[in-house]
Amino acid sequence: MKLKEEEISKEIIFKGKILNLEMYNVRLPNGNISTREVVEHPGAVAILAIDEEDNVYLVKQYRFPIRKILIEIPAGKFDSPDEDPLECGKRELAEETGMKAKEWIYLGYIYTTPGFSNEKIHLYVAKRLDNVGSEPDDDEFVEVLKVNIHEVEQMIENGEIIDAKSICALYRYKQFNKGS
Amino acid sequence: MKLKEEEISKEIIFKGKILNLEMYNVRLPNGNISTREVVEHPGAVAILAIDEEDNVYLVKQYRFPIRKILIEIPAGKFDSPDEDPLECGKRELAEETGMKAKEWIYLGYIYTTPGFSNEKIHLYVAKRLDNVGSEPDDDEFVEVLKVNIHEVEQMIENGEIIDAKSICALYRYKQFNKGS
Repeated sequence: MKLKEEEISKEIIFKGKILNLEMYNVRLPNGNISTREVVEHPGAVAILAIDEEDNVYLVKQYRFPIRKILIEIPAGKFDSPDEDPLECGKRELAEETGMKAKEWIYLGYIYTTPGFSNEKIHLYVAKRLDNVGSEPDDDEFVEVLKVNIHEVEQMIENGEIIDAKSICALYRYKQFNKGS
Repeated sequence: MKLKEEEISKEIIFKGKILNLEMYNVRLPNGNISTREVVEHPGAVAILAIDEEDNVYLVKQYRFPIRKILIEIPAGKFDSPDEDPLECGKRELAEETGMKAKEWIYLGYIYTTPGFSNEKIHLYVAKRLDNVGSEPDDDEFVEVLKVNIHEVEQMIENGEIIDAKSICALYRYKQFNKGS
């Protein structure tokens, strides 16, 4: 079965600070014409930072789009489209938690919402953590929590953690860890 | 620590078929003013449909925003903001796979990308499946795959499944199943 859609034309609707909105005309596999609304996002990195006692560092922060405080793993956007994911991960972990890690393990990437956006999030495990003494950045309004990984799993089970990237990272870490 | 951001003003940038784009001025916890770009999405439902032999129904489809064919669990948007999630799930499962289920189990919801969108996806398990004989809808360009759940887990591990909602649903199902 033919699945691919062909781009016919493109219009840039909006260029923002963190995202662009584009509207496309596309040719569907059956030849019909349709439109696609696409949110262009620079991409991001999310970090499962875990210490020797299996404690995970989580951040509590207000998410304006949903008007709620969420509990998530540390994460952040690329500064530029060609930023190295690992460098981005190191920066975001330091900015949000004040931590550095001696060991970084790549867990692959996910697409968070491929139906309307190209956002791609790279997932890392960060181990052998050191507190570098710094507080979170002035413009980062986050509260850091240190929670044992078994409790993190329970928080997913009981709906306290409902952030997709955080759930994906935990699952991928469990898969990775089982094999080690 | 104060985390909440207060809305000061709102501008609607774009109203589309599947999403709206809004720009806000907000007051940060420290009193500074900033902007927030928000993609309003109607919400969606994703379904882990699994038969008596632990086979999962997956759909292969072209995702224009990332210009790739992805393998995902069946899913779809609400027709209206107040559509019942279960009704939406039943409709989408039938439209994408031609299947009906006698048993539906709610696994909670996730936020896919709370940094820039309010998209909320409700997750269900669908069991005791019947093929109602219909082919996928004419405007659904999807290829249906039937894959054992252990192989689905391997596909997540080796990066063949990189769709966040599919990974979250599988993890939540494993949690649910362990307890039963």
